[in-house]
Amino acid sequence: MPPLTTRPEGRGGEEEALARLAALLPPPPIGEVWAGDDTAVVTTPGGHSSMLLAADALVGGLDADFSLTTLADLGWKALAVNVSDIAAMGGRPAHAVVSVVGLGPDELEDLYGGLVAAAREFGCSLVGGDLSGGAEVVVSVAITGWVEGVPVLRSGARPGDDVWVSAPLGAAAAGLRLLRERGPGQGPAGPAEPWRQRLIKAHARPRPALNAGAAARQAGATAMIDVSDGFSIDVARLARSSGVGVDLGPVPVAEGATTEEALRGGDDYVLVFTTPPEIDVCAAFVTAGEAAPIHVGRCVEGAGHLRLAGRSLEASGWEHDL
Amino acid sequence: MPPLTTRPEGRGGEEEALARLAALLPPPPIGEVWAGDDTAVVTTPGGHSSMLLAADALVGGLDADFSLTTLADLGWKALAVNVSDIAAMGGRPAHAVVSVVGLGPDELEDLYGGLVAAAREFGCSLVGGDLSGGAEVVVSVAITGWVEGVPVLRSGARPGDDVWVSAPLGAAAAGLRLLRERGPGQGPAGPAEPWRQRLIKAHARPRPALNAGAAARQAGATAMIDVSDGFSIDVARLARSSGVGVDLGPVPVAEGATTEEALRGGDDYVLVFTTPPEIDVCAAFVTAGEAAPIHVGRCVEGAGHLRLAGRSLEASGWEHDL
Repeated sequence: MPPLTTRPEGRGGEEEALARLAALLPPPPIGEVWAGDDTAVVTTPGGHSSMLLAADALVGGLDADFSLTTLADLGWKALAVNVSDIAAMGGRPAHAVVSVVGLGPDELEDLYGGLVAAAREFGCSLVGGDLSGGAEVVVSVAITGWVEGVPVLRSGARPGDDVWVSAPLGAAAAGLRLLRERGPGQGPAGPAEPWRQRLIKAHARPRPALNAGAAARQAGATAMIDVSDGFSIDVARLARSSGVGVDLGPVPVAEGATTEEALRGGDDYVLVFTTPPEIDVCAAFVTAGEAAPIHVGRCVEGAGHLRLAGRSLEASGWEHDL
Repeated sequence: MPPLTTRPEGRGGEEEALARLAALLPPPPIGEVWAGDDTAVVTTPGGHSSMLLAADALVGGLDADFSLTTLADLGWKALAVNVSDIAAMGGRPAHAVVSVVGLGPDELEDLYGGLVAAAREFGCSLVGGDLSGGAEVVVSVAITGWVEGVPVLRSGARPGDDVWVSAPLGAAAAGLRLLRERGPGQGPAGPAEPWRQRLIKAHARPRPALNAGAAARQAGATAMIDVSDGFSIDVARLARSSGVGVDLGPVPVAEGATTEEALRGGDDYVLVFTTPPEIDVCAAFVTAGEAAPIHVGRCVEGAGHLRLAGRSLEASGWEHDL
């Protein structure tokens, strides 16, 4: 996955196509959210209004370079990206189903090694799925989750809200850069300084920010999204959904990453969220036993417009070509 | 999809690989069913023990011949096969998410035309999903459903139970044969006698037996499965899960289909279920406003063994190669 393409966000890609398709659907009933957020929010017969449901597929060659990472890493990541969508609503994952296309029996066991490890790590049960032949590797995961209380949508930020990230940015993109520099066939776990290992691991085995998402929701976050396609593109999505602009200060860059990787690198799975200015977010995180989030900006008037240090910032990063 | 391959069921295919993968998972908690049935059965925070969750992917070229059917048909079928899994538990579908790989914007609208039509028809809400590039068309659907009461598993049949089908068999395989005979490019809706049109429609726009599944569950069915890979292969799965054999009499053949298509043709989405002999199933179906099911045999001692008119029947049909 080239995480540093700079194709302007929304141009003929996944976002625009999803919007066209959402127009074909009937409107959701009151209390439900369908397309347009990190997950759908649906009601259940028990009256729970906060079941979460999402799906994300990874494509071999496009989302994973098998000369640099393993099938087990792909399995881990296929679950992790879905868990991250649950985290971005402030929820907890519950169950996942997996459809795999294009792998033989031994390859499937490798893939499942990573899937099962991620499921154990993130408290999510793999409960089924199906297998199919095919010329290309596709791993589709669908996930359910639950929120105690009200999930945090992308659309609730208001002018004046503070903007936070749960961790420094750019680690996954920097890790991919290091793997590419080292060249194919070296494997992801070769000897390297600790900071290099951390970056490579951030790419190969991303960790969704489940606890930070729950802490942000409990602290009173007004909007939240996970950084999957790149910080600038995902902040722009939050801003557009909320009908606000965002003035960004310097963004925190992961050790060993570049500012460009922090702004436009994909696959970070750091959370971006907003809170009203009267909330002491850092105290709330510390109370929840979480590392304090990092303040990166403020919401202003202006639908979807981003500024970085006073200059207009083009939202770009990784978006799937169709 | 060649529905009349006669590869013996279980030889290196999906079934065996799924069993290998299931062994990598921890055991489910009491009250849940994970791998090995038409859907998973999971508990929810509200204490509901009967949420259903399943996923099924269709691969272009393998599961759909685009010279004979349309993208809209593929969309319909991708949802219908998942709804059928819910029907086979005696449940009702609730929500579905869709991951699509390898289609451009206009093709996506065609696909969604069929998806949306099927969702409306079967009372299932499409609530999200994702899109990705790729060289091959893959449509992965995951679905949730609910059962009032206890879902009907594959594993509850006992010797002495009657075996029923919800409708005559072989229609979808016969429809595919008619399309192939007519040749590519004629489209699925050309002029034809009503029985030909019915068979072609059974292939292109299969209809899950939701009401029959609910009626069977309410009548006290002990085991149930849908015919997706072929009657003989799916009855053998039910028999093996239940640890019984099945003695079959003549099977009902859809008008215009052959006995071979009825026994081994895939994609029928007819339900097969078992009931204790003391239950008046036909009366229960009539009370539920459903056409009476058709008696096709009886469960006997002998794990997984099938006999047809007194002779051993090899379970074969359509199974995905890996």
